[in-house]
Amino acid sequence: MLFFENDYCEGAHPAILQRLAETNMEKLPGYGTDPYCASARDKIRAACGCPEADVFFLVGGTQANAVVIGSLLQSYQGVVAASTGHVNLHEAGAIEHAGHKVLPLPQVDGKLSAAVVEGYLRTFYQDENHEHMVFPGMVYISHPTEYGTLYSRKELEELSQVCTAYQLPLFLDGARLGYGLACPETDVTLEDIARYTTVFYIGGTKVGALCGEAVVFPRKAPAHFLTMVKQRGALLAKGRLLGIQFDTLFTGDLYREISRNALLTADALRQALRDKGYRFFIDSPTNQIFVILEDSTREQLAQKVVFSFWEKFDDTHTVVRFATSWATRMEDVERLAALL
Amino acid sequence: MLFFENDYCEGAHPAILQRLAETNMEKLPGYGTDPYCASARDKIRAACGCPEADVFFLVGGTQANAVVIGSLLQSYQGVVAASTGHVNLHEAGAIEHAGHKVLPLPQVDGKLSAAVVEGYLRTFYQDENHEHMVFPGMVYISHPTEYGTLYSRKELEELSQVCTAYQLPLFLDGARLGYGLACPETDVTLEDIARYTTVFYIGGTKVGALCGEAVVFPRKAPAHFLTMVKQRGALLAKGRLLGIQFDTLFTGDLYREISRNALLTADALRQALRDKGYRFFIDSPTNQIFVILEDSTREQLAQKVVFSFWEKFDDTHTVVRFATSWATRMEDVERLAALL
Amino acid sequence: MLFFENDYCEGAHPAILQRLAETNMEKLPGYGTDPYCASARDKIRAACGCPEADVFFLVGGTQANAVVIGSLLQSYQGVVAASTGHVNLHEAGAIEHAGHKVLPLPQVDGKLSAAVVEGYLRTFYQDENHEHMVFPGMVYISHPTEYGTLYSRKELEELSQVCTAYQLPLFLDGARLGYGLACPETDVTLEDIARYTTVFYIGGTKVGALCGEAVVFPRKAPAHFLTMVKQRGALLAKGRLLGIQFDTLFTGDLYREISRNALLTADALRQALRDKGYRFFIDSPTNQIFVILEDSTREQLAQKVVFSFWEKFDDTHTVVRFATSWATRMEDVERLAALL
Amino acid sequence: MLFFENDYCEGAHPAILQRLAETNMEKLPGYGTDPYCASARDKIRAACGCPEADVFFLVGGTQANAVVIGSLLQSYQGVVAASTGHVNLHEAGAIEHAGHKVLPLPQVDGKLSAAVVEGYLRTFYQDENHEHMVFPGMVYISHPTEYGTLYSRKELEELSQVCTAYQLPLFLDGARLGYGLACPETDVTLEDIARYTTVFYIGGTKVGALCGEAVVFPRKAPAHFLTMVKQRGALLAKGRLLGIQFDTLFTGDLYREISRNALLTADALRQALRDKGYRFFIDSPTNQIFVILEDSTREQLAQKVVFSFWEKFDDTHTVVRFATSWATRMEDVERLAALL
Repeated sequence: MLFFENDYCEGAHPAILQRLAETNMEKLPGYGTDPYCASARDKIRAACGCPEADVFFLVGGTQANAVVIGSLLQSYQGVVAASTGHVNLHEAGAIEHAGHKVLPLPQVDGKLSAAVVEGYLRTFYQDENHEHMVFPGMVYISHPTEYGTLYSRKELEELSQVCTAYQLPLFLDGARLGYGLACPETDVTLEDIARYTTVFYIGGTKVGALCGEAVVFPRKAPAHFLTMVKQRGALLAKGRLLGIQFDTLFTGDLYREISRNALLTADALRQALRDKGYRFFIDSPTNQIFVILEDSTREQLAQKVVFSFWEKFDDTHTVVRFATSWATRMEDVERLAALL
Repeated sequence: MLFFENDYCEGAHPAILQRLAETNMEKLPGYGTDPYCASARDKIRAACGCPEADVFFLVGGTQANAVVIGSLLQSYQGVVAASTGHVNLHEAGAIEHAGHKVLPLPQVDGKLSAAVVEGYLRTFYQDENHEHMVFPGMVYISHPTEYGTLYSRKELEELSQVCTAYQLPLFLDGARLGYGLACPETDVTLEDIARYTTVFYIGGTKVGALCGEAVVFPRKAPAHFLTMVKQRGALLAKGRLLGIQFDTLFTGDLYREISRNALLTADALRQALRDKGYRFFIDSPTNQIFVILEDSTREQLAQKVVFSFWEKFDDTHTVVRFATSWATRMEDVERLAALL
Repeated sequence: MLFFENDYCEGAHPAILQRLAETNMEKLPGYGTDPYCASARDKIRAACGCPEADVFFLVGGTQANAVVIGSLLQSYQGVVAASTGHVNLHEAGAIEHAGHKVLPLPQVDGKLSAAVVEGYLRTFYQDENHEHMVFPGMVYISHPTEYGTLYSRKELEELSQVCTAYQLPLFLDGARLGYGLACPETDVTLEDIARYTTVFYIGGTKVGALCGEAVVFPRKAPAHFLTMVKQRGALLAKGRLLGIQFDTLFTGDLYREISRNALLTADALRQALRDKGYRFFIDSPTNQIFVILEDSTREQLAQKVVFSFWEKFDDTHTVVRFATSWATRMEDVERLAALL
Repeated sequence: MLFFENDYCEGAHPAILQRLAETNMEKLPGYGTDPYCASARDKIRAACGCPEADVFFLVGGTQANAVVIGSLLQSYQGVVAASTGHVNLHEAGAIEHAGHKVLPLPQVDGKLSAAVVEGYLRTFYQDENHEHMVFPGMVYISHPTEYGTLYSRKELEELSQVCTAYQLPLFLDGARLGYGLACPETDVTLEDIARYTTVFYIGGTKVGALCGEAVVFPRKAPAHFLTMVKQRGALLAKGRLLGIQFDTLFTGDLYREISRNALLTADALRQALRDKGYRFFIDSPTNQIFVILEDSTREQLAQKVVFSFWEKFDDTHTVVRFATSWATRMEDVERLAALL
């Protein structure tokens, strides 16, 4: 069976396992106060060009979204997101569980445009009834998006300008950030992200770690953020598990390097699909590929390959997703290509 | 520096790291649906004598408490706990964040007695005003308690009877369960716990794992518990990380075996303290030792040993805690003894 | 200045004020346990043809929605509503504040169709990922809707069938219920509403009362609903204020009778608008009239009439709302007609 | 039957009913924007000596507590209160429902002392673990307390100083404020309360109104407080109902005048109880009287008088409460005295 279902199907990059083993019996203080967390924070600050950044290590993506959004919003505020945003659809209502509405806006290819956000905000404040409505308190974007697409630097800058004009934090969900940063087509760097956002996170779970997301406040975290992390059950006792992983990923250029493999294998797969005449549902440059399959083709392929059902396209077609990861082998792509 | 600050200062038992390495490149489905999680569940069911138990793997203790309590309570209910209970004092209000009051009751040595719980419940329902009050919806105990003490089988049975009489779930926080089960003084087995509680968890973080707690519903989990886990940001994408750890801990008798080391080293330390005439704050049979130190002694000792400040005892004395773990070396206990 | 801004601009029907005065110095027990509340409940049960119904009196509409929805949903559930539903747009996030997502569906004229709801539910349960999503836990409709439109008996029956098939409660927001029941075009009776819904409320605030909504569970209220009302700050100490008002409104046919005035005056206004060639935004048979005005017309009219801005229609037109009430005088409609 | 059960058993002061009737058919804007609300605000500002105060009218006391506390606290904060405080015991968990812990402190006669609060705060910040605990974010007191006792001006000033030192808002629940202000024994004025607190409310429900509490921020309300009121279902559509009532109560000295009746009748009842040798549970100077009755006496009395069960005192005695109100007639006190 070939496995292209998602980008979290393997364990961790071997360098991480090795560091975990080497440091295993060291006696370290808990809750992120150990030297590996400190070192990882320093390396991340350097990579972001933000020597003053506050960095926190959380375990997973839904958790990171819920903690960050819940901590930054006031009770009368909601979070603006693309209608396709992970926080709107696939987090089982984690944002609402913490008391806040997700304010969904129309998207194109999974992206929010500055114009759409600005139009929404302007209309909101013009509405005479807006004191009876949920106030927008933050803008959430993902990069890469849930459809594998990327913002350009200009698009980020424009979103940032709108957010600044309306005094809203801009939060970037980087669950797959490595696959965005390493993409040859992007002009967005980690420094850009640190410049244009109020807070973002660097995904580990989907990019080589066993678990873990590094939440970065390029300027300053809200007061008592650690307590809000604890309150949401998200403060890991053995913080070393996260610190060591991110310290390893940000030693040398490992995070970007291992991301490249996902892009190379995705490119090869995209080419094979194109060559065989498959129809793409969306044009994405990163490690997620969305294809429209005839249902009979899909059933046949599913006997030998694991991939994701995405949504019905029409009565006889389905959108499916193939994903590659830092660990995908080119030979598996070739085997898949042979089956297409 | 000698380290007796807590029982989560080391990494994981080497057998766990080895299994993580061996299985690392296997491509596995996510969210706890992999075969290692399945195997771990089976072994835990067998160890509990509950072939029908539902088992879920969560990352940490505060998270487990918040998810279990939040999922089982109705909105008009709170959770009954010892006033010293972890959920009442040291979880930054995680239970209240999910909308529920902790209903603190008087405790002795960190334990709730059936008589105290029954008295509270009887009074509650007699109160003509009780419809204006928070209804008790669950009883929470920890075993070992926050003071390292243990319930006897009879005490558990009595608590269970009270809970049954009032139709309340009984929830046992087993963050340090191994150290309770392996204690020579206990008459409580894992089967007993499964028999007397509605839900409990088997702590991994403090007993040999990098992270992880196994939540066990000996009879049946509430409907859609997985979604409630997800909603609280507690569903790990790479569930394998938890499954492999618990599968290892419940292979052979590893969980209990490694727990024994904590008890042996704690016993040796307790004996040394007793021999030197130290005064105990509480009489605990497990891996946490609470001692009353004169402040000058404390300061001196703190130069060579890391231990926990617990609370002021009086103007010139302090209660401190020494903790051992599955990984504490007897030679470190001997070194500490020499310093006393 | 003529006032057509809303249907809550007057005080109460004089018969209510008179009863409040007559009973004022009687010493009555609190929290809805007085004989006037009991009598009002009996009259409402009779009017609904539900001798077993549970009836609770709350103060306002947003409160009633938040209490009912929050009390009936489990934590993993959200409430299905028309995207234009009051709970989705104009309650400042009250539902999310209580931890639940509003699941907005496409609507026509402010109404949800059984087909749309059924399609959504079927797709939800077919989605392999639905355990990572908010479960639909209830369907919310308003009758009349926010656009003044009405469900037919057949439409209600079909919605009810879908809800039954999926075991979902159907909740009807009747903030303006009187104006629906008294409408000559409707075939829906109070008995129908009691038959087809799980819970609904009879609006008082907009239909002759100073405040108050009667929440009716035709079969049975959830356990401890009163405590959930209290917990949400919605239990009025002097419950008599609500009991006396509803007792008066349901003495004879007062509730329906006074509703008729709103419909007669609305009809007259609609006719005048039609005669003068105004363009309707939506075709509504009850006491709210939505008209598309050229902006210059709107500004001119606004100097002599108070009405509601609803939304921009295009660059030069606006949708406005005229509302009548139980207390609107026909002579004011005539004055307004003269200004058109 | 004589009725001394509580102070909300009558309707409203006749002057209120008269004003409601006089203004009934005026067409007024909603949600507290009408001229009666404006006038009431001005009169309250004048009475408080705070021309800049923000004043909001809510419907009830539990609602006022939940809205104020929920709006002022950050998510990591709880509210400090006397263990006997209404928010801790008798609001069905309304504060926790909004996500916040009540931090109960020891009380004397229902009152919090500055020393106890300061000791708690000092210890909290000294605790090395305090980042894992709920931060105190506000101090809540009631005046009169739940036991009818009163703070002195000096006690309020000291509490205020502690709160200022720790930058905590001080919130005073004045559900029975009239009965405190009109008490001959008090040295606390409304101006004092405005000076020493961050926010307080003036109770209407228990002091002559049908419903309503006036929340006063002597300096400034938090941003978007109105939206937080709406979000909690507490914004009355017909705000006039509250505005007219408070406008009437603060015309002349009506609020204080009608309060005096409760104090005079309570004094007479206290004297009668004292003369007959009854034992007081607590020494309270306002309109609530707590007496320890032998159970047989209690049962006998209960056949002719309605009073409140408070709590068991011992096996053969019970604490009961007699309450008077603005409307209690002296002749009823005399009848009760004759029965003692």
